[in-house]
Amino acid sequence: MTVLVGGIEAGGTKFICAVGTGPDSIRAEVRFETTTPEETIGQAVDFFQRQQEEHGTLAAVGIASFGPVDPDPDSPTFGAITSTPKPGWPNTDLAGTIGRALNVPVGFDTDVNGAALGEWRWGAAQRLHTFVYLTIGTGIGGGAMVNGRLLHGLIHPEMGHMRIPHDWDTDPYQGHCPYHGDCLEGLAAGPAISERWGEPAQNIPGDHPAWDLEVHYLALALQNLVCTLSPQRIVMGGGVMKQTQLFPMLRRRVQEYLNDYVQATAILDEIDAYIVPPGLGSQAGVLGAIALGQQATA
Amino acid sequence: MTVLVGGIEAGGTKFICAVGTGPDSIRAEVRFETTTPEETIGQAVDFFQRQQEEHGTLAAVGIASFGPVDPDPDSPTFGAITSTPKPGWPNTDLAGTIGRALNVPVGFDTDVNGAALGEWRWGAAQRLHTFVYLTIGTGIGGGAMVNGRLLHGLIHPEMGHMRIPHDWDTDPYQGHCPYHGDCLEGLAAGPAISERWGEPAQNIPGDHPAWDLEVHYLALALQNLVCTLSPQRIVMGGGVMKQTQLFPMLRRRVQEYLNDYVQATAILDEIDAYIVPPGLGSQAGVLGAIALGQQATA
Repeated sequence: MTVLVGGIEAGGTKFICAVGTGPDSIRAEVRFETTTPEETIGQAVDFFQRQQEEHGTLAAVGIASFGPVDPDPDSPTFGAITSTPKPGWPNTDLAGTIGRALNVPVGFDTDVNGAALGEWRWGAAQRLHTFVYLTIGTGIGGGAMVNGRLLHGLIHPEMGHMRIPHDWDTDPYQGHCPYHGDCLEGLAAGPAISERWGEPAQNIPGDHPAWDLEVHYLALALQNLVCTLSPQRIVMGGGVMKQTQLFPMLRRRVQEYLNDYVQATAILDEIDAYIVPPGLGSQAGVLGAIALGQQATA
Repeated sequence: MTVLVGGIEAGGTKFICAVGTGPDSIRAEVRFETTTPEETIGQAVDFFQRQQEEHGTLAAVGIASFGPVDPDPDSPTFGAITSTPKPGWPNTDLAGTIGRALNVPVGFDTDVNGAALGEWRWGAAQRLHTFVYLTIGTGIGGGAMVNGRLLHGLIHPEMGHMRIPHDWDTDPYQGHCPYHGDCLEGLAAGPAISERWGEPAQNIPGDHPAWDLEVHYLALALQNLVCTLSPQRIVMGGGVMKQTQLFPMLRRRVQEYLNDYVQATAILDEIDAYIVPPGLGSQAGVLGAIALGQQATA
């Protein structure tokens, strides 16, 4: 596929917009702060209009957005950011506004489903039909592909809000989630690590006990993902997973907790290829958006 | 679809075999104990051969089997019961043996995926594309359809073995699962209820505190299913769910635990239609097998 599409990684703190056909062919990229919807969407539209003047009409624009969002093409509010706590942004018709301004088809999904699609197209999930992309950062979110198609279901998964065992004796920290207290995100996202240990997660040394506890919680979450979605692979991105020492620890701990119950070579013998970082690195987001745009041209 | 197919609900304690086209057209049904593979499979073959003499050739046979199983049609061990603890049954080529003896195509899946397919075809999950069928009985198992197709992934889900919070202060029972101790199945399947309270689950009165604790654990599990699979509905069967007082308790508790985080009408306002018993009742298993057989003729 070589048609030129636009992609927007629409995050709660910044927008990244790019034009291209894949990882080796980004023609232009711009990033700016997420301020008001009017200003931010206006900047994105301006960028793509300038690109169209230079490169010709875009075949589509893909948007991988912070949320919650409405990704159901049959819904009257398709393409909207719905009940976000970010001021000014609830009920913002992101996809519709962009599509009308540029007069192009728009592919729209959650940021994590976008990243999953990008990893499937060009990254660490190529040739798989069922896998999970999980991001551990300021929040915890997950996207999934099942039988070759992105999972939406009722709305979309909210993997960060699953419940896992919390050992209060060794970890009296009460959790950071305003909705569920000590759900996965409440216990294991970046802000929980920082608050529990009293310093920013990125400043905590690699041999600090914080990471053993983090691995414990993440391994319980991965056990739950294996038991519910039965993924062929789990791709883990986000700021916290830049602590790359976590990967080998996590692989061993997942094997320990599953305790040989799931008799699959991928888990028993090849776990180094089962729990992996994103193949696209920090470009997963914007390339995922470009992949969503390509899907919208199909 | 009116072609005549056979169905086998292959359970660890009994086999149910039937011939028909759907819920209102079961021509014949037989049930017998699960003994050795030779004897049990022989009895199934005998039954279907007699049925073929009477009704003509079957278009296919569907098998919804206890497991773990290999449901991957591309695998050399497709259709086998694999690592089951049931003596004599590990590595039994159930689908192959039946298919060769009767010379018919065989549809094969887990018991819970079979039940899910039956509920989708004729029961409580009609017209949905993404839902979960969960059974709470001697064990806990779950099947799922995503985007209109049954979920297998790496092998198949093992929903009973997800981890949930265990409040040791109020519930010092250590759990019943030989692999994971206090996973969901270890805390909330029938044997755990019986062992914790010292009497068979079916004899415990409806107003006993056992049920409040059961609802607590099941609601945590449903929160995890909502957050990972984002089902449009959750159908709950199995012996424990014959305690029908659990349904209204569970619905309220799931709303309480999700705490308005998932902004979907189905959960916020229509939860009575979101967490439901099987539409096919105790026939879900064998009708699911017939649906698997029909799928194998397509």
